[in-house]
Amino acid sequence: MLRPKTKIVIENENDFFGPGVAELFRQIQEHGSINMAAQAMHMSYSKCWKLIKRAEKVVGFPMLTRQIGGKNGGSSELTDEGKEFLRRYHAMRQEIQTASDDIFRKYFPDGYTNTEKG
Amino acid sequence: MLRPKTKIVIENENDFFGPGVAELFRQIQEHGSINMAAQAMHMSYSKCWKLIKRAEKVVGFPMLTRQIGGKNGGSSELTDEGKEFLRRYHAMRQEIQTASDDIFRKYFPDGYTNTEKG
Repeated sequence: MLRPKTKIVIENENDFFGPGVAELFRQIQEHGSINMAAQAMHMSYSKCWKLIKRAEKVVGFPMLTRQIGGKNGGSSELTDEGKEFLRRYHAMRQEIQTASDDIFRKYFPDGYTNTEKG
Repeated sequence: MLRPKTKIVIENENDFFGPGVAELFRQIQEHGSINMAAQAMHMSYSKCWKLIKRAEKVVGFPMLTRQIGGKNGGSSELTDEGKEFLRRYHAMRQEIQTASDDIFRKYFPDGYTNTEKG
């Protein structure tokens, strides 16, 4: 069974906020640490840092609070604005995917044009 | 001004039909030749051929008619089913993008949360 899959990014002129960095923030929230999120995502710390900076440039506010040092080498959590942004982003994605499924069925009402095959 | 950008692919289990191969078929239609479409897209013939085969596997019917040989080294054009498929695919994409813009505005009614910045 075929279906449409949507990749939604929020973009400004050169940068964008997409599923990858959204997952990174989810991991940071879960682990409380950029370092541990980076490990979980098999990415380098510097790559994660770049993604975070780019995301903050797109959204226009800090996504993370940062405590330097501490027993785990520093901890990070999402700012309230960051949490609210992600909540909306995920809700929006979900609603767009649902709408896309409906629109797909409209254009391909038999699930697919395969019914036209000989 | 931020906005959402959607990338829509139609997928089955392992393969998908997306914007890249849709553009390839558009080029084939324009040039009447896989070779010339490949050149226009700066892709190798074999890469194009692979994309075409994958697309036909996804949609389940031939996308192209093929005339081997001839003065331009063979010509290709879209089958009627292929044209109809692309027509629906592009209309669907357009409608999904419009729906996405609406949904984005619902979740980010001020164009963005930037209004909350200090």
